[in-house]
Amino acid sequence: MPAPFEYEIVDLTDEELAAESEVLGALTASVRRLGLASLQTTVDHETVAEVTRRIDELAERLETSRIPGNYGVKLTSNGRVRGFGNAVVGLRNPVAPPVPIVQDRERGRASASFELGPLYEGPPGMVHGGVTALVLDQLFGEAAAAGGKPGMTGTLTLRYRRPTRLGACSAEAWCDRVEGVKTIVKGELRDADDQVTVEAEGVFILPRWAREQIAETGPPQYE
Amino acid sequence: MPAPFEYEIVDLTDEELAAESEVLGALTASVRRLGLASLQTTVDHETVAEVTRRIDELAERLETSRIPGNYGVKLTSNGRVRGFGNAVVGLRNPVAPPVPIVQDRERGRASASFELGPLYEGPPGMVHGGVTALVLDQLFGEAAAAGGKPGMTGTLTLRYRRPTRLGACSAEAWCDRVEGVKTIVKGELRDADDQVTVEAEGVFILPRWAREQIAETGPPQYE
Repeated sequence: MPAPFEYEIVDLTDEELAAESEVLGALTASVRRLGLASLQTTVDHETVAEVTRRIDELAERLETSRIPGNYGVKLTSNGRVRGFGNAVVGLRNPVAPPVPIVQDRERGRASASFELGPLYEGPPGMVHGGVTALVLDQLFGEAAAAGGKPGMTGTLTLRYRRPTRLGACSAEAWCDRVEGVKTIVKGELRDADDQVTVEAEGVFILPRWAREQIAETGPPQYE
Repeated sequence: MPAPFEYEIVDLTDEELAAESEVLGALTASVRRLGLASLQTTVDHETVAEVTRRIDELAERLETSRIPGNYGVKLTSNGRVRGFGNAVVGLRNPVAPPVPIVQDRERGRASASFELGPLYEGPPGMVHGGVTALVLDQLFGEAAAAGGKPGMTGTLTLRYRRPTRLGACSAEAWCDRVEGVKTIVKGELRDADDQVTVEAEGVFILPRWAREQIAETGPPQYE
C-alpha cells in the first residue's frame, strides 16, 4: 500500500513566483537548446571535448547550491500545483518538451498544442511511439482532474493508427464516463496535418488516501 | 499509407565509430548532468542568468556546424542500426535516460536495468507513468525484433499496479505469441525492490513495405 504523496507548500508572492518562473524558465529553455545542438552538431571532436568541459563547469556552478533529489510537487498559497519537475509539463525540466496543457473544467476536457522535435525521435523522422504515450498519459490525468475526478493511471491503452511525423502536434482528452471510483478518459493525438495518429483510452482510479488528500488540498492543476 | 522509413548508410571503420561514440557520448552525459543541475539548483537568480548566457554561447558553438533536422536512424556497414537520436536509447540524445537494452535472440526477449532519476518525475517522488510507457514501448519493439518479428507498435496496453519510485528500475519483455503478421509481446517493469509496478502487453505489426525493407537490411538492433 503506497503512502500518500507529499506536497510541499511554498509561500511566495505572485511577483516572486513570476520572477522565479521567468529566470528558471529561461535556464531550462537554454538547456533544451543545448540538448538539440548536442544531437545535431557536426563540429570537430576537439571542439566537442572543449564544449563538454565548459558544460561541466557550468553544471558545477549550479550544483554549488541545490536540492538533494527530486523536485517534487509544490502547492502555492493560492492552491495551485507547481509541478516544475514534471517530465511532460515541468517548467524546470529540460526533458519535458514542454507540453502546455489547457484544462476545460466546464466540459471535463484537456487539450494541448506542442512541438515534438528531433529529441523525441523513434523511427526515422517520426515521433517515438512511447513519447506519444508519455504526453497522452499526462493529458489524460489532467482531463480526469478537469472533470472533477482526479486520479492515478490504472490502465492506459494506446492504438497507433499511423506514424506521427516530428514537428507540430496537438492532443485532446475528455472524460468519457465515471464508473464508481473509476474515471474513463478517451483522447487522441494529431499530427501537423490534423490527422489522428494515436487513439487512447485510460482508466483513472483514486485510492482512498488520495481522495482524503484532495478533500484537503483541492484537485491538482498544473502550472 | 506511410512511406518506408529512410535509413542512411554510414561508412566508418569500427575505430572511427568508437571514437565518435566516446566523444559525443561524453557530451551527452554532460548535457544530462547540466539538465539535472538546472532542475535542482537553488543558486541566486543573477548566477542563473549568467549561467544561462554561457549555455547559449556553448550552444552557438555547437550550432556553427550541424545537421538541419532529426538525427535519423543510420545503418553501419556491419549492418547494425545506430539510433543515436532515439528518445529512449540514443547515445546522443540527452532526453534519453538512457536505457541500455540487451536483446536475447535465442529466447526472443529483451531486458534492461536503468536509472530513472528526478528528470523523470510525475507524482512526487515517483516515475511519471508515461515515462514507464516510453521505456516499455522501446523495450517491446526490441523484444519483437529479438524474436525475429520486428514491427511497429500497433497497440500498447499498460496496467499500473503501483507507483514506481524514482531510482533504479529494471524491465523485461518477451514475445508471447505470433498471430499472422501480429507479434504479441508481454513484459513488466520493476522498481528497486524488484516489485512489479507496471505490466504491459503490446501488439507489433509489420507493414508489407517494412517487411520488404527488412528483407534487404536485416532486423533492427540498436547500438
